[in-house]
Amino acid sequence: MKTFEEIRDEILIGHLYYLRNVSIDNVIFGYHNKELKVLLQRPQGIHKWVLSGGYIKRSESIDEAAKRIAKERTGLDDLFLTQFMAFGNPERTKDSDISVEFLKKMIGPQKIKDFWLFDYFVSIGYYTLTEFELVKPSGEYNIEECQWWDIQKPPSMLFDHKEILAAALKAMRLHLYHYPIGYELLPQKFTLPEIHTLYETILGKKLDSRNFAKKLISTGIIKKLNERRNIGAHRSPFLYVFDKAKYNKALKNGMVLAI
Amino acid sequence: MKTFEEIRDEILIGHLYYLRNVSIDNVIFGYHNKELKVLLQRPQGIHKWVLSGGYIKRSESIDEAAKRIAKERTGLDDLFLTQFMAFGNPERTKDSDISVEFLKKMIGPQKIKDFWLFDYFVSIGYYTLTEFELVKPSGEYNIEECQWWDIQKPPSMLFDHKEILAAALKAMRLHLYHYPIGYELLPQKFTLPEIHTLYETILGKKLDSRNFAKKLISTGIIKKLNERRNIGAHRSPFLYVFDKAKYNKALKNGMVLAI
Repeated sequence: MKTFEEIRDEILIGHLYYLRNVSIDNVIFGYHNKELKVLLQRPQGIHKWVLSGGYIKRSESIDEAAKRIAKERTGLDDLFLTQFMAFGNPERTKDSDISVEFLKKMIGPQKIKDFWLFDYFVSIGYYTLTEFELVKPSGEYNIEECQWWDIQKPPSMLFDHKEILAAALKAMRLHLYHYPIGYELLPQKFTLPEIHTLYETILGKKLDSRNFAKKLISTGIIKKLNERRNIGAHRSPFLYVFDKAKYNKALKNGMVLAI
Repeated sequence: MKTFEEIRDEILIGHLYYLRNVSIDNVIFGYHNKELKVLLQRPQGIHKWVLSGGYIKRSESIDEAAKRIAKERTGLDDLFLTQFMAFGNPERTKDSDISVEFLKKMIGPQKIKDFWLFDYFVSIGYYTLTEFELVKPSGEYNIEECQWWDIQKPPSMLFDHKEILAAALKAMRLHLYHYPIGYELLPQKFTLPEIHTLYETILGKKLDSRNFAKKLISTGIIKKLNERRNIGAHRSPFLYVFDKAKYNKALKNGMVLAI
């Protein structure tokens, strides 16, 4: 494992390897058992929480950078990341929670004003939605805490990260009407109430269950099986599976889910 | 008007005023009389066409940069620009149509390899949809041609601009289901066939006219007037107007138009 000093030395010449003025922030949402959460980190010496972000290597695309950064943070390397928005204004990474003394301690004697890392950064936001039990929050060298937070009650967040989180949620909710979700989040065979709950949890609102089922089935992305789940007297709902070919086609071309 | 040499000198030290490695590309769509077009430019000495792009000043937000650049290109300063996607990979601005000789002529004797403008740029894409008769394509110092192109038959485009154009069209079509359009594109009082044609033109597909009208009216963004347009014997369709309060609310909060 690298020492703090080794890492600091790498950061000091980081502008030779990373793009300047543009970075990545990943919003990692987790779904499990009717709950929607977001993975946040608290860096060493800072009281506020951040999204898991990073910088873009000169040799990689922005999509590749987002994947690499997500893998470094979650351990998962097959996350489906969706780019949703870029954030950029000269004030966005100014925060009273980061003092000049803190920065000096971090980068040493050189002038903070001229240091590439504290320049104006436009951040490209990506989000992913995963089964949160699959992700093992891993702290890195400069991360003091890493944990899942209820989307309704996020902690105090650094910079404009609360705004980025809100925009990611808004984008994910809009995309729900046009791109299928659920393949990684539901059991292979699931009931209509299970997928209904998934959509309601992500949208954060109630959906009429008959209309929802009718519209979802009409997209062709789910198929009814001639098989029921027996969950008690008089309750044995039919099971469904995703039609993976139609699911993938809808992921690629989009659809209209008029729920 | 500045001379070529004055402009070149400004460009040479542009990295002091503009962000590095991140830029803006605006996709300016125009609607008029059942046609959807896009405004493209052909720079001096280049055979391919480009979107109207530019760089971000260190003092401005990315939204402000997009507006300023759009104004410089179209003369309109009240365009409603929507950010839709960022594009970034190390190869995206390499193009055989731009030769080393051309670049040398443009920037003079300094090393091209080290020149900030030819570095890896992540471009943030914005689109706008305007009444294309309002826009006066204006050539700038380095633009040889500037004109509207039919969205179906774009010319050969530089870099990845064809991909950016396709992504803008896809995003605009998706947004159509969630944000109102038409206020700047239709007469103040319009008929259902007129707004139906607008939506069909932008989506590039046929929509069932009865269902479209029913769903659009149910959003509340248009209101029926007790007034008809007389366009001939037995043809006097009712006129509609936008409900500006509901229109603005839907622009801000989104809606679901299940057409």
